[in-house]
Amino acid sequence: MVLDGLGGLPHPETEKTELETAQTPNLNSLAKKGICGLVEPISPGLTPGSGPAHLALFGYDPFRFTIGRGVLEALGIDFSLQERDVAARGNFCTIDDEGVISDRRAGRISTEKCIELCQQLSQIKVNDIQLLVSPVKEHRFVIVFRGDNLCPELGDSDPQQVGLRPNQVVALAPEARETAALANEFIGKAKALLANSYPANMVLLRGFSQYPHFPAMSDVYKVKPAAIVTYPMYRGLAKLVGMEVVDSGDSIEEEFAALTRHYASHDFLFLHIKQTDTAGEDGDFLRKVQVIEEVDAALPQLLNLQPEVIVVTGDHSTPALLKAHSWHPVPFLLYSQWCRPDDVVEFSEPACAKGSLGRFPALEVMPLALANALKLTKFGA
Amino acid sequence: MVLDGLGGLPHPETEKTELETAQTPNLNSLAKKGICGLVEPISPGLTPGSGPAHLALFGYDPFRFTIGRGVLEALGIDFSLQERDVAARGNFCTIDDEGVISDRRAGRISTEKCIELCQQLSQIKVNDIQLLVSPVKEHRFVIVFRGDNLCPELGDSDPQQVGLRPNQVVALAPEARETAALANEFIGKAKALLANSYPANMVLLRGFSQYPHFPAMSDVYKVKPAAIVTYPMYRGLAKLVGMEVVDSGDSIEEEFAALTRHYASHDFLFLHIKQTDTAGEDGDFLRKVQVIEEVDAALPQLLNLQPEVIVVTGDHSTPALLKAHSWHPVPFLLYSQWCRPDDVVEFSEPACAKGSLGRFPALEVMPLALANALKLTKFGA
Repeated sequence: MVLDGLGGLPHPETEKTELETAQTPNLNSLAKKGICGLVEPISPGLTPGSGPAHLALFGYDPFRFTIGRGVLEALGIDFSLQERDVAARGNFCTIDDEGVISDRRAGRISTEKCIELCQQLSQIKVNDIQLLVSPVKEHRFVIVFRGDNLCPELGDSDPQQVGLRPNQVVALAPEARETAALANEFIGKAKALLANSYPANMVLLRGFSQYPHFPAMSDVYKVKPAAIVTYPMYRGLAKLVGMEVVDSGDSIEEEFAALTRHYASHDFLFLHIKQTDTAGEDGDFLRKVQVIEEVDAALPQLLNLQPEVIVVTGDHSTPALLKAHSWHPVPFLLYSQWCRPDDVVEFSEPACAKGSLGRFPALEVMPLALANALKLTKFGA
Repeated sequence: MVLDGLGGLPHPETEKTELETAQTPNLNSLAKKGICGLVEPISPGLTPGSGPAHLALFGYDPFRFTIGRGVLEALGIDFSLQERDVAARGNFCTIDDEGVISDRRAGRISTEKCIELCQQLSQIKVNDIQLLVSPVKEHRFVIVFRGDNLCPELGDSDPQQVGLRPNQVVALAPEARETAALANEFIGKAKALLANSYPANMVLLRGFSQYPHFPAMSDVYKVKPAAIVTYPMYRGLAKLVGMEVVDSGDSIEEEFAALTRHYASHDFLFLHIKQTDTAGEDGDFLRKVQVIEEVDAALPQLLNLQPEVIVVTGDHSTPALLKAHSWHPVPFLLYSQWCRPDDVVEFSEPACAKGSLGRFPALEVMPLALANALKLTKFGA
């Protein structure tokens, strides 16, 4: 069970974090029976995005298993990417009469405006390539190039700086020359089409990428995994590592019901709680506390299933005080019949810091969980 | 001092591990004066075999310094392998009229029967190669091919699965073709010879390997090492890293006497206590407790020698509750005049979990021990 952005920072008045503030009798009792520690999602001091942080929890080294920005953005809107598609992240931006970028986000136009402009861009024809332009939010969109022999080895048109002209898209490999030409042709036509749409009078593209092929968890770990997730990007991530994404509902209550419904047919279940992170990002300390308490109250439903191994942690910290993801290591607890309990009796940052697992990398979570399920064979004789 | 399989799991009634249950006043007082931690033998979650686990303690990365199954089995029976020998692990097995394996272990024939059949197999002649077939236990034996130009780069004949025919031994490198032919010729002749020895009517070979050449501890660490060990496989391992294996007796008492006897002539002594692991493998919680207490009672003999550095740990955990090696990290203590003691006052899993060394990889043990002996020079200026 991953509570997104679980880790927090102490409230200045109470000196307690969100997790310390929450009443969590069920999590505390599980911590008492289990072993605890603090997880470093990626590397100490690094603030992780949710993509790499989850990959690490599932045992995929995020420095090796990378996901392009375009693909990640497409996963985030549940866009069904095909094998040969090339996706890029797009920004509507503002350029001046000289073609120099004056605002990389076109004054953060409304999402409605973005939808309207994306419909216009979808009219553009470039050779026999299919162009799929989908709005995300405000100035952000996804563009997918669909056709034969496309290659994502392309530089960005987005210089990520105002005061410069957009870059020509360059091929970073010989086989990408044709795709580079197509991208530049699209950008030229978009510029013409948007000429009168100030402030959104130009587009910037970056992160050209294709759907990556990661080894499936069923092959790597010989498990039959299910994902109970409510947000598009996490659905996409779960599919990337070969999980079956089951019907999960929208609320925490519905997710726990889905867990019970799909428990018997799988032997690895990933239950993702998004609301902790959302409350943290909103800077809403109290709402994050309440979400944690709601999860704690639902925990007995999970315990009733009597899994051999239970892991409760977060993918990263999202302290309400920072209103953002942070680098702080994340509370972790593991329970199994064979875990050799430590003396932690409470699920919180300071208590986990004293757990027998210490501070440890997220990549160790899967081997530890599988070992506790007695699923790993001996190394050497 | 390595207590094999030292780490344990709490007894369901007392909630104390073997080491926590044992009365160990001498180890506790050493823990109080020293620093403690938990060692990860190979990698978190991995259950180690004794071979790689010891190599790691001696500072040899077990992923890099590998020992073939055939060689390891030969070490285990104190077989004196020569430089160019190729050793393989053998199983007597049962095949049906179609040549399909129906039992990979030939119903676990008695060791007496194994000895008798190995004598028969020793009669086989294959070209001018010497064939040495030695019984191990029950259905297990070691075969050593001795002659010129042998190469161990061979596939297994053992498919490690019933319902299949034994594999032809294939050469995995061009220079192994001749050895593959010799191995297949031996297997053919063994099959003919065993035709009437049902259930042991066929042999399976795996892990063809040659004695590996590891750097000697005397070269790597500039020490003069001695090993006090009572079991063949550990003698073999100690020799592999260049230790002098001294006459050690059989009992724990005799081992401590050997330690005293050989102390002055060496400056690194490896004292191996096997009985903790044996009791753990037998699921005999109480006997493991007693072995630990016997070692604790003998400890003053070691302390009287006043070594500059004392390390007490295990190669891995063997909880009596699991009756097998396990992945759990292992209690560790180091004492020296220069160790900067922590506040651990007891030698046990939960106490070591709070030691200032934390949870750390076995490969760090040798540098730490040498540093505490003031034997390492400064890195950089």
